[in-house]
Amino acid sequence: MMGNTPRPGPLTGLVVVDLSRVLAGPYCTMVLHDLGARVIKVEPPGAGDDARGFGPFMNGKSAYFMSLNRGKESIALDLKADGDRAIFETLLDRADVLVENYRAGVMEKLGYGWKTVHARWPRLVYASVSGFGQTGPYAHRPAYDMVVQGMGGIMSITGHPGGPPTRVGTSVGDITAGLFAVVGINAALHARAASGAGSQVDVAMLDGQIAILENAIARFTALGEIPGPLGARHPSITPFEAFETADGHLIAAAGNQTLFAKLADALGRPELANDPRFATNDSRTENQPALKDILEEIFRTRPTDHWLDHLGEAGVPCGPINDVGEALSDPQVIARNMVATLTDPVAGDVLMAGNPIKMTGLPDDTAKPPVPDLDADRAAILDWLAKEA
Amino acid sequence: MMGNTPRPGPLTGLVVVDLSRVLAGPYCTMVLHDLGARVIKVEPPGAGDDARGFGPFMNGKSAYFMSLNRGKESIALDLKADGDRAIFETLLDRADVLVENYRAGVMEKLGYGWKTVHARWPRLVYASVSGFGQTGPYAHRPAYDMVVQGMGGIMSITGHPGGPPTRVGTSVGDITAGLFAVVGINAALHARAASGAGSQVDVAMLDGQIAILENAIARFTALGEIPGPLGARHPSITPFEAFETADGHLIAAAGNQTLFAKLADALGRPELANDPRFATNDSRTENQPALKDILEEIFRTRPTDHWLDHLGEAGVPCGPINDVGEALSDPQVIARNMVATLTDPVAGDVLMAGNPIKMTGLPDDTAKPPVPDLDADRAAILDWLAKEA
Repeated sequence: MMGNTPRPGPLTGLVVVDLSRVLAGPYCTMVLHDLGARVIKVEPPGAGDDARGFGPFMNGKSAYFMSLNRGKESIALDLKADGDRAIFETLLDRADVLVENYRAGVMEKLGYGWKTVHARWPRLVYASVSGFGQTGPYAHRPAYDMVVQGMGGIMSITGHPGGPPTRVGTSVGDITAGLFAVVGINAALHARAASGAGSQVDVAMLDGQIAILENAIARFTALGEIPGPLGARHPSITPFEAFETADGHLIAAAGNQTLFAKLADALGRPELANDPRFATNDSRTENQPALKDILEEIFRTRPTDHWLDHLGEAGVPCGPINDVGEALSDPQVIARNMVATLTDPVAGDVLMAGNPIKMTGLPDDTAKPPVPDLDADRAAILDWLAKEA
Repeated sequence: MMGNTPRPGPLTGLVVVDLSRVLAGPYCTMVLHDLGARVIKVEPPGAGDDARGFGPFMNGKSAYFMSLNRGKESIALDLKADGDRAIFETLLDRADVLVENYRAGVMEKLGYGWKTVHARWPRLVYASVSGFGQTGPYAHRPAYDMVVQGMGGIMSITGHPGGPPTRVGTSVGDITAGLFAVVGINAALHARAASGAGSQVDVAMLDGQIAILENAIARFTALGEIPGPLGARHPSITPFEAFETADGHLIAAAGNQTLFAKLADALGRPELANDPRFATNDSRTENQPALKDILEEIFRTRPTDHWLDHLGEAGVPCGPINDVGEALSDPQVIARNMVATLTDPVAGDVLMAGNPIKMTGLPDDTAKPPVPDLDADRAAILDWLAKEA
């Protein structure tokens, strides 16, 4: 077990006890681990975290699980059995943070609700990540990413007008909840330094979806209109969208007047910037279909690479629509250490995302630590608990 | 000016000097404000933050700007003019955090690069949010949300197979970068409590897009396949998707074997759970089109509300696909204080998202504080700087 040796980073020395499963909670504790914290994953005996059984697999090991749990330690504890409860409580004696993502009420039934835990471990930061939160009429309902993507409105503004429902291609319901939980936990740690007291952090996936609706709420409140899906363009900035080229697509984003003039120049149509239909961002947004037709007719004459070079030289924000393989081989993505590799004894080399938070004093390795088998660190953890009690 | 009176919350008493514009940086400082920090927005004289000019407008005021900048203070400073630089530096004397989202190199040209600032204000946490980060071959390129959504791969997995490019309907490029920046800032504050030293935090929008690709990277690394768009279903969990009903759509998400059996029961087709094509999650994912046809034929016989009640009672995670208006009037969303209102003297009542981080000691008001006009707090800020110097 490496965990007992503090790793450098802003959260070095912190101990996180992690009861969470699948994605939102494990994403939260993955970020805490990336920042230097020690994360002890407490899993149910038997199968452990459900995500150990989620594909895709590499020689029988879940790549999904590995990407979220590298560097964590694992101990299997049955929180309904007395002996294991005693171990769990000794872990809480040493912990700075507890993360759980059960449905509301489950921790109370186990005897580990916030009030009980706070009374006994007053310095512990206690974070709950759930589908609907600890309060409100749906608190006890189950939820998954797709459910909150649907309920929270983001699916209603993703996709093409008149087209079928469209999910955001990644689990933004879980991931944003995980990130809001990290924000709350770190803020609670900051507050604890002054007060000595831990806080309860209560984050709901559905709340997180509302919190990322940004200008869709502004449009709803200002215009009284229900925002719909807009395909591949920005609702209120134009041109700011995908265009067809001779061999694919590109994104061009002219976010202000100067950039639109540069774009018009670069496409050999400087007069567009003076055309009354396109004179301001608002008029361009009103006349978006007409402007798109004019620009796309030009973009269709040459391949994507040509235009990216040409617009790039002109200072117009632009880029390709990369697939996942292209994104992971992009020189900037590689230069930023955003492609990391875990070398697993069973699965082999597993690619995963690097840490997007680059900070003073935080190593930015692209070699990720191994993922624990279920209960792999039990003996070492018990040894640590016994020695320093 | 209310700013001088500390507000309750885990970041109470902290002073954030905010040079950022538009979305990623202002989203970051909005979250810091929601957690109790005082945010002083330093804007360029003249037009201020570009977002003041972004629609939609309410009596001439940008609803977009209001939703991101409520509760902040504003001072207009020309960072190329000596007098204003002196004021800015006095602000840094008092600040705990500096947030900027210029392109890499701009702060250095202004004489306020990390090294210079850290030498003079060693306790200051210095966060940069940019399109591509402070390092790497694209560091100096401009970027907007659409550009990083395209480059980072998320557009390639959003939308329908064979369909046109599809943007995520909200600016996840900016918002995730803003959130990763908050995480880094709060971690740096925690570290500072022990070390006394501030940190540099360097977050790139493109890096953030890679960091949220989750199982798309797992599929790429495990299967060697380029993941494509999948419409409204989960790539590796089935059934976990949108279904057509008699009057619209619903989401049903049966994330494990028990839930699939419950779903099959609830639809009057218990034998499906024993059908060899659908016996495990992997086989269901392989035979997703066949399973979808069977389930959708049943869902099409009754309206969405019927099925949500019925599946809800059966304990199957499910939900509607709400539009933005429906999402904001959902009883759970309202009960969680996720719909907030700013009453602006000019614009009137402006709806916006509440704070998704519910914490001990953090008030959860749904009445949001006003947004400052450009330079509105100049006199009060100068007064504060003079008095306590």
